[in-house]
Amino acid sequence: MDTPLGPRAPELQVSQWLNTREPITLASLRSKVVVIEAFQLLCPGCVHHGIPQVQRIAAYFDPAQVAVLGLHTVFENHEVMGPETLKVFVHENGLGFPIGIDQPQGRGLPLTMQAYGMQGTPTLLVIDRSGRLRHQEFGQVSDLAIGAAIGALIAEPVDAAEAS
Amino acid sequence: MDTPLGPRAPELQVSQWLNTREPITLASLRSKVVVIEAFQLLCPGCVHHGIPQVQRIAAYFDPAQVAVLGLHTVFENHEVMGPETLKVFVHENGLGFPIGIDQPQGRGLPLTMQAYGMQGTPTLLVIDRSGRLRHQEFGQVSDLAIGAAIGALIAEPVDAAEAS
Amino acid sequence: MDTPLGPRAPELQVSQWLNTREPITLASLRSKVVVIEAFQLLCPGCVHHGIPQVQRIAAYFDPAQVAVLGLHTVFENHEVMGPETLKVFVHENGLGFPIGIDQPQGRGLPLTMQAYGMQGTPTLLVIDRSGRLRHQEFGQVSDLAIGAAIGALIAEPVDAAEAS
Amino acid sequence: MDTPLGPRAPELQVSQWLNTREPITLASLRSKVVVIEAFQLLCPGCVHHGIPQVQRIAAYFDPAQVAVLGLHTVFENHEVMGPETLKVFVHENGLGFPIGIDQPQGRGLPLTMQAYGMQGTPTLLVIDRSGRLRHQEFGQVSDLAIGAAIGALIAEPVDAAEAS
Repeated sequence: MDTPLGPRAPELQVSQWLNTREPITLASLRSKVVVIEAFQLLCPGCVHHGIPQVQRIAAYFDPAQVAVLGLHTVFENHEVMGPETLKVFVHENGLGFPIGIDQPQGRGLPLTMQAYGMQGTPTLLVIDRSGRLRHQEFGQVSDLAIGAAIGALIAEPVDAAEAS
Repeated sequence: MDTPLGPRAPELQVSQWLNTREPITLASLRSKVVVIEAFQLLCPGCVHHGIPQVQRIAAYFDPAQVAVLGLHTVFENHEVMGPETLKVFVHENGLGFPIGIDQPQGRGLPLTMQAYGMQGTPTLLVIDRSGRLRHQEFGQVSDLAIGAAIGALIAEPVDAAEAS
Repeated sequence: MDTPLGPRAPELQVSQWLNTREPITLASLRSKVVVIEAFQLLCPGCVHHGIPQVQRIAAYFDPAQVAVLGLHTVFENHEVMGPETLKVFVHENGLGFPIGIDQPQGRGLPLTMQAYGMQGTPTLLVIDRSGRLRHQEFGQVSDLAIGAAIGALIAEPVDAAEAS
Repeated sequence: MDTPLGPRAPELQVSQWLNTREPITLASLRSKVVVIEAFQLLCPGCVHHGIPQVQRIAAYFDPAQVAVLGLHTVFENHEVMGPETLKVFVHENGLGFPIGIDQPQGRGLPLTMQAYGMQGTPTLLVIDRSGRLRHQEFGQVSDLAIGAAIGALIAEPVDAAEAS
């Protein structure tokens, strides 16, 4: 169901999760703001900017209000960014939040990346408490901008119809 | 009038304004979020952290929603931080937002500093659209935290009783 | 042959080179200062500090005076840091200097790492114009310190006996 | 006496010293490398780049080999950058090395600034162990570059004729 504030965010399509026992769905996170960092482990912009920023986000916000997820959206060099390499990357960088592997589609774009029309990595997605995609940013975003976006969405009421 | 969200922010007491033709009052800024950087021009924490941060805030947020002010709260070394020195500091650093000189009280704490019970500089004040003091932070605050605080207050409705 | 200034640096043992047509030996670089960044592509300290620093070194110094090399010293997680992954890493990060893969020894320490007694990654080696190992630093080194070390070695004459 | 490596650095002309009991002359520092940061306390490039860099230099190098000095070269806004303001600046920033006030010449350029033909602030001067001016840099210089310059001069022998 779409609303005046925009479409409901497409559900995640993930082949494997790290850092969580149960698979995670956006539906199950309704009533929280959801921040998703889509990255590739060999992408310098992700490693130098996106990943450190999402670690700061995960450290600063209350997990009861803001859910932080990583999404490994491999769209190039698939053969060297498989799940075993990702596990080492996650361990070495001390990433504690759940990280999903975007469902591969051969050598093409993985399925969640397709569904969101992402242009590349890093891409930061922010989803409101009613499940609507409110921000999608490709490339670098300042801490001030992303802080303001998250702060505003925490302050919004959950849409009654959506939350039901 | 106080409210459940806290007291109305004390009005500014300023002896002289830079970067504005008309004196500024908090009352005249009602309906905007107000961010005030209280600083001293020879305070290293102000120069290295507070001032660059408030410049980023002034550059990022829409001035129709967020008013940014500086407040020169001189509580030590008064003789070397007078108005002429401040004017050079403001010019050299390219500060474009209005800056008030906190009303001096001899060699003691200036009056606005006293009214807010500030512990030192830098201190960052954030006042909501209804004129209530919602954040008062002494020392360094991250861009993520201040962004979230401002973003949340922009999203809040103006309190009807307060705004009248 | 050893000298009062210390032993000759052990020759590199490399299974494969990137960014160079011909294999490189320390012997062939005699009369230049040689800076070697030993790293692993999934080591955060290497990616965030060591690699950017050695890129600055390669950009600043005259290649006629200072030869910069990378050495991929894989001593853990061998299965996810193979040559194909390294090639993507080198390409994505725009590394232009020659990079050797330290000769693997099964799952143990690779041979050059053993010969130098390296404690881990990143390790920065600086070899003088006469082929002697003069600095070996594990972990972060400041730009000021490494600049001073390289500057001093450029200024030294080549040892006559060594250079012959 | 000039030499093939360049002229002897002009002697400092200083009206007042801070952080030292005795006035300092370049002549008295012969046999050390001398690093001089020429600055103005209200110059943003000095405050944000030059002063922190010279503090790192003073902290890193052995004072038996490298003498670090500040020089307050006021060439504008003289009335707000007097000795009392400088004393507060030095104290607040925890500067421990000797700082001279370049000899004022009315509202014109102070005398040492004139003698060196400085273009503005910050200017970094590096003088070799024989008293010759070897580097004069206006604006930002990288830590790698200044480290290399100092390291090279430490490694040079004192010129016999000069040192006498």
